[in-house]
Amino acid sequence: MNTLVKRSDVAKLAGVSEATVSRVLNNVGPIREETKNKVLQAAKALNYQPNSIAQCFARGKSGNIGVIVPSFPKVHMLSTYYFSEILSGIGRRLGESNYSLLLVFQPPDQPKNYVQLFQSQKIDGCIILGAKNHESDKEALIHLHHLDLPFIVVNQTYLDYPFHTIDAEHYEGSYKAVSYLINKGFRNIAFVNGSNDFSNSSERFAAYKDALKKAGIEPMENWIFQGNYSRSSGIKIAKEIAPLIPQLDAIFAANDRMAIGLMQGLSELGYKVGKDFALIGYDDSDIASMVNPPLTSVKVPLFDMGKIAAEKIIQMLNHEITEQIHIRLPVTLKERASCCKQIT
Amino acid sequence: MNTLVKRSDVAKLAGVSEATVSRVLNNVGPIREETKNKVLQAAKALNYQPNSIAQCFARGKSGNIGVIVPSFPKVHMLSTYYFSEILSGIGRRLGESNYSLLLVFQPPDQPKNYVQLFQSQKIDGCIILGAKNHESDKEALIHLHHLDLPFIVVNQTYLDYPFHTIDAEHYEGSYKAVSYLINKGFRNIAFVNGSNDFSNSSERFAAYKDALKKAGIEPMENWIFQGNYSRSSGIKIAKEIAPLIPQLDAIFAANDRMAIGLMQGLSELGYKVGKDFALIGYDDSDIASMVNPPLTSVKVPLFDMGKIAAEKIIQMLNHEITEQIHIRLPVTLKERASCCKQIT
Repeated sequence: MNTLVKRSDVAKLAGVSEATVSRVLNNVGPIREETKNKVLQAAKALNYQPNSIAQCFARGKSGNIGVIVPSFPKVHMLSTYYFSEILSGIGRRLGESNYSLLLVFQPPDQPKNYVQLFQSQKIDGCIILGAKNHESDKEALIHLHHLDLPFIVVNQTYLDYPFHTIDAEHYEGSYKAVSYLINKGFRNIAFVNGSNDFSNSSERFAAYKDALKKAGIEPMENWIFQGNYSRSSGIKIAKEIAPLIPQLDAIFAANDRMAIGLMQGLSELGYKVGKDFALIGYDDSDIASMVNPPLTSVKVPLFDMGKIAAEKIIQMLNHEITEQIHIRLPVTLKERASCCKQIT
Repeated sequence: MNTLVKRSDVAKLAGVSEATVSRVLNNVGPIREETKNKVLQAAKALNYQPNSIAQCFARGKSGNIGVIVPSFPKVHMLSTYYFSEILSGIGRRLGESNYSLLLVFQPPDQPKNYVQLFQSQKIDGCIILGAKNHESDKEALIHLHHLDLPFIVVNQTYLDYPFHTIDAEHYEGSYKAVSYLINKGFRNIAFVNGSNDFSNSSERFAAYKDALKKAGIEPMENWIFQGNYSRSSGIKIAKEIAPLIPQLDAIFAANDRMAIGLMQGLSELGYKVGKDFALIGYDDSDIASMVNPPLTSVKVPLFDMGKIAAEKIIQMLNHEITEQIHIRLPVTLKERASCCKQIT
């Protein structure tokens, strides 16, 4: 039933050989104008679509940009604001190009054989999301780098390696958030961080300590908590934080999902955001403005980070990049109603 | 710098021709055991990865499943719960297979040339999201169908065409939602639907009317509103609904995003969910449990719909499907605190 038009059909209608059809359509070798016109007319009449795989094969290209997304058995990773926004940004830019977006799901416990994606010509370039400080991540990236394969890492910075990266000003954003709380008169500020496997977690932690110290406040070891950027980890930490609430003024959470987990967990234990404690989230995800009270948060331009990553990969493939890319986009504080505490 | 191993390198090390390497690795033609071992050992020593494009080209396959996602200039489509969940489900199943996921962004005003994706061998099969009742959508699908190309439509049913579809029981879900409100004693129930371009919108509308009629309530023309499934359309409709609130008991919204827009818009006008009116959403997105009061909603198994769509496409490509697929998954009502109204 499948009646796709083949090169041989064009050759037959034009009355030439298949090789001639190829030469005309790939624009190689000397061809008489008359022959060329016959082939082009036949191709048009039959609505012949040159086989892009064959073309890519001839060029050694797939026409695809791979996007690596970490994949965990029970987590709907693409349903998180963080990944979906970056992916939307990548898709927006690739949609304007001739490249297609190939999603590659990477389970954390599987070998990160990104080079094979190039070797098997599945992709021409690669955007890596969710990369960590782990040895296995670094080795995989070093391998790509040594082979001079085009790739860029989003939202993760490796200080000791010259990888191309698109990141955001997480130190500055976190410093701003904590200073904002201090300026509101809060001095007893807890911090709920994500995993230290990410450079942005370490940057937030450094900024938290620095902002407190700048204000003459000594960071308290037992006011620092670590979740895994999920809402459930926020709910879990709420139980640990609850006994401290009478002393605490405010909590700075390293993303909105954990902040909302804290809101919900503490609410169940009788403590209300904006009344018993102030709360700042991070990312400024769409939920931040939907919860009650709306959540003050640090806006990270995730969509733009994805868009720029795609732009830079396209430039690499066009050989327009000569120096290491290390872009860090600015972040901004979005003030909402969650940063109050009733004075008792 | 790019030191990818080529077929010629394997041939050289094994001391055979490139054609022999191909025959061994593709397992075609008669080959002496000794030659075969030499080639395999050389391939192993060099860590040679057979070129998957070349393999696919030989087989006429790309190894990719295309997923069509509608793309609008200002909307981050993948960041909506609806699309990201379906995509997560598709990704989960494809991640367990040898197929890769090729994302195809389809602007609504551009020709829907899905056949070309097959002709140019970008994809072997296709999952279509966001398809409408429009002529241009139907024509594109009829074209695929006539060419016997493997595709499946998610969450859209065409009664007059024998397309493979994965859908959900939207009539039953909506009937359940409206009946639930009636059983709570509410009789004055408004309905905020999405676009009638989608079969699920029409199903919800039919169920809304039927459930009311079953209870002896005549549907009121001016209590039926139409948004576009976005939060901003909910906020906009809030202004139209506000003057009716004193008479209205409850609102049934065709998705959670519009329901949350209604909550926010009506809250700004002084009307509170769970106090001045009851509210039911649809989809049971992650936000439903995060808003205050938490939103009663109809849970649609979007992740599973994506997973099954991928499963069925793989079966089609394995020639394991002989009959039309028309699966409709059940939906369930998730009761939360938004379905109260204070009796005054």
